[in-house]
Amino acid sequence: MPLLNVSSVSYSYDGVVNVLSDVSFTVEDGTIVGLVGPNGSGKSTLIKNIFDLVRLQSGAIRIGGHEHTRPGAKELAMYLSSNDYLPEFLTAREYLSMMGKLFGLETDHEKALGLFRTFAMEGRYDDLIEDYSHGMRKKTQLISAFVIRPPLTVIDETLNGVDIEALYLAEAEFRKVRDEGRSILLCTHDFAVLERLADRTLFLDLGSVVRDEATRDLVDEHGSVAAMVFDHLGTSQP
Amino acid sequence: MPLLNVSSVSYSYDGVVNVLSDVSFTVEDGTIVGLVGPNGSGKSTLIKNIFDLVRLQSGAIRIGGHEHTRPGAKELAMYLSSNDYLPEFLTAREYLSMMGKLFGLETDHEKALGLFRTFAMEGRYDDLIEDYSHGMRKKTQLISAFVIRPPLTVIDETLNGVDIEALYLAEAEFRKVRDEGRSILLCTHDFAVLERLADRTLFLDLGSVVRDEATRDLVDEHGSVAAMVFDHLGTSQP
Amino acid sequence: MPLLNVSSVSYSYDGVVNVLSDVSFTVEDGTIVGLVGPNGSGKSTLIKNIFDLVRLQSGAIRIGGHEHTRPGAKELAMYLSSNDYLPEFLTAREYLSMMGKLFGLETDHEKALGLFRTFAMEGRYDDLIEDYSHGMRKKTQLISAFVIRPPLTVIDETLNGVDIEALYLAEAEFRKVRDEGRSILLCTHDFAVLERLADRTLFLDLGSVVRDEATRDLVDEHGSVAAMVFDHLGTSQP
Amino acid sequence: MPLLNVSSVSYSYDGVVNVLSDVSFTVEDGTIVGLVGPNGSGKSTLIKNIFDLVRLQSGAIRIGGHEHTRPGAKELAMYLSSNDYLPEFLTAREYLSMMGKLFGLETDHEKALGLFRTFAMEGRYDDLIEDYSHGMRKKTQLISAFVIRPPLTVIDETLNGVDIEALYLAEAEFRKVRDEGRSILLCTHDFAVLERLADRTLFLDLGSVVRDEATRDLVDEHGSVAAMVFDHLGTSQP
Repeated sequence: MPLLNVSSVSYSYDGVVNVLSDVSFTVEDGTIVGLVGPNGSGKSTLIKNIFDLVRLQSGAIRIGGHEHTRPGAKELAMYLSSNDYLPEFLTAREYLSMMGKLFGLETDHEKALGLFRTFAMEGRYDDLIEDYSHGMRKKTQLISAFVIRPPLTVIDETLNGVDIEALYLAEAEFRKVRDEGRSILLCTHDFAVLERLADRTLFLDLGSVVRDEATRDLVDEHGSVAAMVFDHLGTSQP
Repeated sequence: MPLLNVSSVSYSYDGVVNVLSDVSFTVEDGTIVGLVGPNGSGKSTLIKNIFDLVRLQSGAIRIGGHEHTRPGAKELAMYLSSNDYLPEFLTAREYLSMMGKLFGLETDHEKALGLFRTFAMEGRYDDLIEDYSHGMRKKTQLISAFVIRPPLTVIDETLNGVDIEALYLAEAEFRKVRDEGRSILLCTHDFAVLERLADRTLFLDLGSVVRDEATRDLVDEHGSVAAMVFDHLGTSQP
Repeated sequence: MPLLNVSSVSYSYDGVVNVLSDVSFTVEDGTIVGLVGPNGSGKSTLIKNIFDLVRLQSGAIRIGGHEHTRPGAKELAMYLSSNDYLPEFLTAREYLSMMGKLFGLETDHEKALGLFRTFAMEGRYDDLIEDYSHGMRKKTQLISAFVIRPPLTVIDETLNGVDIEALYLAEAEFRKVRDEGRSILLCTHDFAVLERLADRTLFLDLGSVVRDEATRDLVDEHGSVAAMVFDHLGTSQP
Repeated sequence: MPLLNVSSVSYSYDGVVNVLSDVSFTVEDGTIVGLVGPNGSGKSTLIKNIFDLVRLQSGAIRIGGHEHTRPGAKELAMYLSSNDYLPEFLTAREYLSMMGKLFGLETDHEKALGLFRTFAMEGRYDDLIEDYSHGMRKKTQLISAFVIRPPLTVIDETLNGVDIEALYLAEAEFRKVRDEGRSILLCTHDFAVLERLADRTLFLDLGSVVRDEATRDLVDEHGSVAAMVFDHLGTSQP
């Protein structure tokens, strides 16, 4: 049984045009899957369907075998957004406690403090997020995922704009997460990150899965993931 | 029974200095209470205690008679923050649906659409919040409160930076909310808004309630709420 | 000779509708003039005309007697915006040096350091603005004006969202600036600030000057500036 | 004569530790040079020295043969920052006019309008930047560079967070800019972008130039630029 099973999902905002057309794919335990798609590919709508932020119109989504609208499914998957969507009036400690509660865990603050040190934010754990820079907020989001360690983490451009060391450290941690049998769905425009991390790459365009293959095979075929994507854009544009 | 009952609440982050010292006050049905306090007054910590974002250390908080950590309490109170803490990857419609679910309601989208028109955002209800300006996000937060209409709304500087018409319209709507018997705890530095709206004003400093009186009486005594606050700051500062 | 002389200024973006219609007013030395206007009042367009950010279409603007497009005029007036429009890759020290250069001054860093202490930002003067919170950026903008002290400062909602002490301290500093014979054009929706500070209030609506009177007289007539503005909005809206 | 000539530049904030130590490199006409460096590498300080935002302490910088503090030098180089450092109260048209003035040019608004169409922002050129999303602001910065087309453009993580089509289009435009004989200094953490675009890669660490070679040679030697950088970080960290 795959950890995430998206099966024949279609979605339309207006009942006329499909933003998603019969999308199916799986994420197995212990794999990192890259999700790539231009504007209008339906990537955001797909994520909103997975996290039950819009009502599923057709098809099925299962997380850990549970129907995706059930509490049992919701405790298995965490979403890290591309923006600074963090409650500014909390400290990082309070935020991580709140996240722990959401996932039914006692937050391991010692572990979080260790990661704050590793990610060059020593001494800031009890400061208000309001006083964090953009980069610190990104790193706090990543750390929350590394502390909670849910079976599935969906990362939506969260690595944009973090510094090189943080990227280096985060990549190492992502690999550890995978080696523990957990899974990551990695949405990113940074094709180099994707080639380094993703076991498989899913390319979505105009609401359909265009490619779903081992990243290595895509690179062998096209030279790079970017070349694959840009070739597609170059030929599909009017 | 008051809608909100805060009783002898103290709070310390380090076990040494009290950020809140024996704070008690109530918010009755159908009243707007202004909450004013300088930095370090404990205002944010008080709000975090009310919303169970930090664990209560001593005292008691009841909302609608329920102990504040209970689901029954949580469905009665809504928090509007000072910043743009909105999920950018949702449309306003999706956001209001999500908020409705949180409060156990079916969101009245017709009402929301009407308010979008009134607040000069016609035609934007199904756009991603990502594409909203700062002012639109503030107005979307306000509209979510006007649609959900919980018994208690805590507004934390949310009116900062909205334009004059929005302020004018929001004030009228706040008065309607009060006239329906609902209550508002209004945290603001805009003393003119406070004098126009708040039946009572609570002034917090250094973790203690300094004043808790009818706004009219404070204005009669000091000339204005600002004068009261600035007099206090002027004499209490080293 | 008034410090700022705006004389019969009209402006249209499309050649059909006037956003400004024959606007005339003056700001004398040593006065604080409040500028109030709803959306679409032409307030922003007026400021852009004063600072030569759009080309004057008709009428005349003089600053210190100089035609407003001349370098002689530009060194007399400073604009503080409502947003965080500060170069994040600079430290505050570097930013104030740059501002000094722009106004042909050697920046007084000792004075700036003193204001950083007063405004509760001790020890942060040499940190990157990137690492400043929203409130700190607002205060840095205010401090730049207090250090440079140009004859005319135009403040566009810059006080929104600063904390009460900063407001209290900034108001005291604004009064000193005025007592030295310098002038401030204060655009704000915070009517209490306006009533406390502005000697005169200019109310703009639909591109025309609706009122231009001593603030005290407006308050005597209407009870408050807010009442004046809201009465006008209430009767002029469809 | 190289377009940009940085020669033996050292810089210290405190007179003790060098943030830059004897940095020398050139950017020739018609080349794209990638600049890579972790936090603390001195990358930002280097850029501030080039743009005369801090006073040069030792060494020399020449742009187009002019000493870098001269107006002749300043009109040759443009800086695109990583953040949304754009004046929100202007429209894009007004902003591009202002930029044109700064570079002594009449802005070609037809060209800008064409690029607004290409970059999927048709009909937004005369809207206030305040109403632009994050992505639109990034694209407006890029378009300003494509319209002004100065001999040297320094791009500081400006491509972070733009969508795939914009990246694809911007890369094509960068190549055109280079083929016209203009130059780009491209600071980015996106190693895939760097490998696709940069003729040469400059790797800065702890204030010194660690590598300055043809990107192709670095990739041949290390497999990828990322591998080169991460190898270095892995061995140089305590």
